[in-house]
Amino acid sequence: MEISGKTKIMFILADPVAHIRGSVVLTRELRALGHDIAISPLHVKPADLEATVRAIRGFHNVVGFGITIPHKIAICRFIDELLPQARLVGSVNFVRRDADGRLTGDNIDGAGFIDGASESGIAFKGKRVLQIGAGGAGRSIAFSIAAAGATALGLSNRTEAKARDLAQAVRAAYPQCDAFAAPADAAGYHAVVNTTSLGMKPDDPLPIGDPAHLTPDMTVSEIIMSPELTPLLLEAQKRGCRISLGKSMLEHQVRRLEALLAL
Amino acid sequence: MEISGKTKIMFILADPVAHIRGSVVLTRELRALGHDIAISPLHVKPADLEATVRAIRGFHNVVGFGITIPHKIAICRFIDELLPQARLVGSVNFVRRDADGRLTGDNIDGAGFIDGASESGIAFKGKRVLQIGAGGAGRSIAFSIAAAGATALGLSNRTEAKARDLAQAVRAAYPQCDAFAAPADAAGYHAVVNTTSLGMKPDDPLPIGDPAHLTPDMTVSEIIMSPELTPLLLEAQKRGCRISLGKSMLEHQVRRLEALLAL
Repeated sequence: MEISGKTKIMFILADPVAHIRGSVVLTRELRALGHDIAISPLHVKPADLEATVRAIRGFHNVVGFGITIPHKIAICRFIDELLPQARLVGSVNFVRRDADGRLTGDNIDGAGFIDGASESGIAFKGKRVLQIGAGGAGRSIAFSIAAAGATALGLSNRTEAKARDLAQAVRAAYPQCDAFAAPADAAGYHAVVNTTSLGMKPDDPLPIGDPAHLTPDMTVSEIIMSPELTPLLLEAQKRGCRISLGKSMLEHQVRRLEALLAL
Repeated sequence: MEISGKTKIMFILADPVAHIRGSVVLTRELRALGHDIAISPLHVKPADLEATVRAIRGFHNVVGFGITIPHKIAICRFIDELLPQARLVGSVNFVRRDADGRLTGDNIDGAGFIDGASESGIAFKGKRVLQIGAGGAGRSIAFSIAAAGATALGLSNRTEAKARDLAQAVRAAYPQCDAFAAPADAAGYHAVVNTTSLGMKPDDPLPIGDPAHLTPDMTVSEIIMSPELTPLLLEAQKRGCRISLGKSMLEHQVRRLEALLAL
């Protein structure tokens, strides 16, 4: 990999940055698609975000940037346009920089998730869906599940108030979807979606209660990339459920990013 | 090569950027020395330079940046400190960013050149030196040749006024060195130094007049990296002169950069 004057430059704005690996994964995936691109994390404190965004408008070989904790909401005030999903979710995870410095923000987590699930043969139209987690990527995914035609969306979250707030926002945007705060119990649903990090560490509890409530007619989806098969997915496979992997979401987020940035 | 949240980030500020390969070479050389570093060119117009520099103060994983055409002089106004060589030369090619955002500029072309020549057994103390070229890296190299103890420095430049100006500045800084504008004729010198780009393209003329004026007691130094052996160096070798290569200069610039940035 070489970074020359012809390379398209991207950043990931974050604070802190030391843990960030997304730049590695995204650079690898976009280069595998044939793009001469390089993505550098930038460690920017909240007080410096506005000046950073203003400066990036003047970086003519920068095609855009990713945004992560803690800037995903604050960034909205400093860019020119929010695409509909970013407006709904109230946060941005990628920004396109046009040649004239104009900045357009989107939130592609939800669309990447739906595309990845769809490739694995999982659709949400007419389905009752249980989603675990109502923060971060979970917010974007909840709106996208509703947009995909789910008739009911149970939202389970450690802090229940957050699940209730998200349920209300989803109902307001998609009245045909009955969104509500719910316990983490798969019984009575067609689909289970884990958007928490439970399953990354070997000693994590399952994100749902009794896995015996998973039945072969159900689908189970993950957003965790590593391990590829989480304990939840292993339980689901054992019980004959169709599953979709976190890496499918990533692959399709990369496609969505490619489209957003017009690479 | 991976760019993660632990990678030290650098830029090269330039306008335009499409031709830039220095980022590739420097990243490769610094990584070969064991540094987890990535250098991205940033295409910044002169009107945006000040805001860019201000923003970089707030990029906490950025260790510094290189500066090239057309920003090497303008940058001086926007940073906190110029090291002595940068002040003498009147331009900066690398800036260190301290943890608190403080910016210190240096011009390491001259020191890298002297170190590289020295490694090839070429010293300038007590020598009469002919330098071709009085712009860009040439300015820094001229001051360093004088600092290294040359007793005379003939400066040949396409635009003679530029050679005269540089000669005057070198004499003012190093009165023991008789610097003057001179024709590109090796006769009567101990050392010849080419700081122009003549020799990069196959059909370039030699940077000096009659190569028969090169004698075995002379040394000949290049700053051109590719081809490694320029027509001038081939003529010099044929006539028994000791030579130093452009790549020696680069290797030692990298060492100087490592020291400047405290990598």
